[in-house]
Amino acid sequence: MRAITVPEPGGPEALVWDEVPDPVPGEGEVLVEVVAGAVNRADLLQRQGFYDPPPGASPYPGLECSGRIAALGPGVSGWSVGDEVCALLAGGGYAEKVAVPAGQLLPVPQGVDLDQAAALPEVTCTVWSNVFMIAHLQPGETLLVHGGSSGIGTMAIQLAKAFGAKVAVTAGSKAKLDFCGELGADVLINYREQDFVEEVRAATGGAGADVILDNMGAKYLDRNVQALAVNGRLAIIGMQGGAKGELNIGALLGKRGAVTATSLRARPVEEKAAIVAAVREHVWPLVAEGRVRPIVDREVPMRDAGVGHRVLEESGHIGKVLLTLR
Amino acid sequence: MRAITVPEPGGPEALVWDEVPDPVPGEGEVLVEVVAGAVNRADLLQRQGFYDPPPGASPYPGLECSGRIAALGPGVSGWSVGDEVCALLAGGGYAEKVAVPAGQLLPVPQGVDLDQAAALPEVTCTVWSNVFMIAHLQPGETLLVHGGSSGIGTMAIQLAKAFGAKVAVTAGSKAKLDFCGELGADVLINYREQDFVEEVRAATGGAGADVILDNMGAKYLDRNVQALAVNGRLAIIGMQGGAKGELNIGALLGKRGAVTATSLRARPVEEKAAIVAAVREHVWPLVAEGRVRPIVDREVPMRDAGVGHRVLEESGHIGKVLLTLR
Repeated sequence: MRAITVPEPGGPEALVWDEVPDPVPGEGEVLVEVVAGAVNRADLLQRQGFYDPPPGASPYPGLECSGRIAALGPGVSGWSVGDEVCALLAGGGYAEKVAVPAGQLLPVPQGVDLDQAAALPEVTCTVWSNVFMIAHLQPGETLLVHGGSSGIGTMAIQLAKAFGAKVAVTAGSKAKLDFCGELGADVLINYREQDFVEEVRAATGGAGADVILDNMGAKYLDRNVQALAVNGRLAIIGMQGGAKGELNIGALLGKRGAVTATSLRARPVEEKAAIVAAVREHVWPLVAEGRVRPIVDREVPMRDAGVGHRVLEESGHIGKVLLTLR
Repeated sequence: MRAITVPEPGGPEALVWDEVPDPVPGEGEVLVEVVAGAVNRADLLQRQGFYDPPPGASPYPGLECSGRIAALGPGVSGWSVGDEVCALLAGGGYAEKVAVPAGQLLPVPQGVDLDQAAALPEVTCTVWSNVFMIAHLQPGETLLVHGGSSGIGTMAIQLAKAFGAKVAVTAGSKAKLDFCGELGADVLINYREQDFVEEVRAATGGAGADVILDNMGAKYLDRNVQALAVNGRLAIIGMQGGAKGELNIGALLGKRGAVTATSLRARPVEEKAAIVAAVREHVWPLVAEGRVRPIVDREVPMRDAGVGHRVLEESGHIGKVLLTLR
């Protein structure tokens, strides 16, 4: 098969479409013939040599895909060759074929095109596990989403609104904020012009955000704690603003707050399967009803994956960038 | 009645035993005739002028007491005049009488002397709410307790062992560590001579602590994150080592860890009542069985409360310092 390889870490040009051996599905795995993959920020770090795949994972980038089951490994039940699926991957989605633990498969939701389904696994699993399973967002609470127009952000808005929360978002342009508003976000904050702490307080009668979904890490840590409500939960899923920051423990204690930091990729197969099962139970029906949909900025041929990486590096996108095989 | 007042913030000598007006129990409150109070670190801060009582609380220090119910305010059911009780207070325990919301009362457990019961409310409620309700310590997991010989520490050891966890403690002397060992602690770490990160890792096959109960705040923040296991939870309940510290978000994310910070005193009455009810359900039976007991360092006459404060300031104690009225 062919796959995007990274012979030497570097810029987008370091991605090379090359002939590689086919993956072989192991015990409990299926082989998926890929129709589309999607670009995640972790792929950019992997390309630069900063984020090696976890032990046992495919060496090729790509944390999600959609496609058709081409073969079943030993011990797999509940799936058949030919099923249209999307999947959460530990790697290898930038390829014509990928082997996936069966617990990380999801059926393509009713009403969603097979290629568009590649936009769903990472964002639904990340948002569900962080905002709902870890931070326990409740109806009537306020969620602050940083990077509201990103793939994660656009899914967080839709899911939080579907579950009856109030949603505030930050983004860097009017066009991005307008799109967030169309998805249902209630409070639109341009981080280039406004202070999100002040804006969130103003929008909540001074209370602050009950849950914050953060991709910035250190740069926003202190202001995120300031923006939390009493009993607030800060869920960090990215460190685009650095990995080490000052934590005001006194302020956190005054709010009886919680700070969590997670990543999906490094979780063991059982934990991923539990998250995927929860997403199938709680999120998939909303997608089938059309209340939650994949948000796709553009599709790029997979062999030109570097073009997709440039889009993310320039942050000009809204939603997901897909990599297609036709 | 008489109470310990603080006419001017200062050292232990700032505490003045004085005649003051009797408290009047309001709606849902009872009046307790105090037999004993206990010293908490928060009382030292209040005496120094660094920790004002929350709005509506008694101006006198004292976050817990034992005694007898002397009167019922309007709307109280389930309690009678003469009942022997202990209570979690928002203040006012350094006094002959105190008014308490009924939801913060606990019966004196079977087999415990009335004065000794004053040693129980703060430590049981703090440990139960943090280690079990927030951090969800599970049987077979490892709990690291800083200040293992403190009032909080001695209760944390006993409760965690009773629920089937492994317990590691830090303390500053062999005598304190020996006592922790007698209470059941499995791993004894002298923080003056040993690195608790290394010792906890060595005792857990490299895994680290699943839950850490921390009273040091900033000074230990980075090492606490290092000492956490994957999926570990750091519960901060004190800031004896400062309020602002560098958080290594990358390390926390690598462990999918959580940092929480809470205080009991500022919680609203309903939350305190929920914690007290959980303590009565889960902890009181263990006390009645003799598996968990109050650990009292010494009893000091309440009029000499400053003596008790000096004991805590010098950290020479093991367990609680009580203030008695006879």
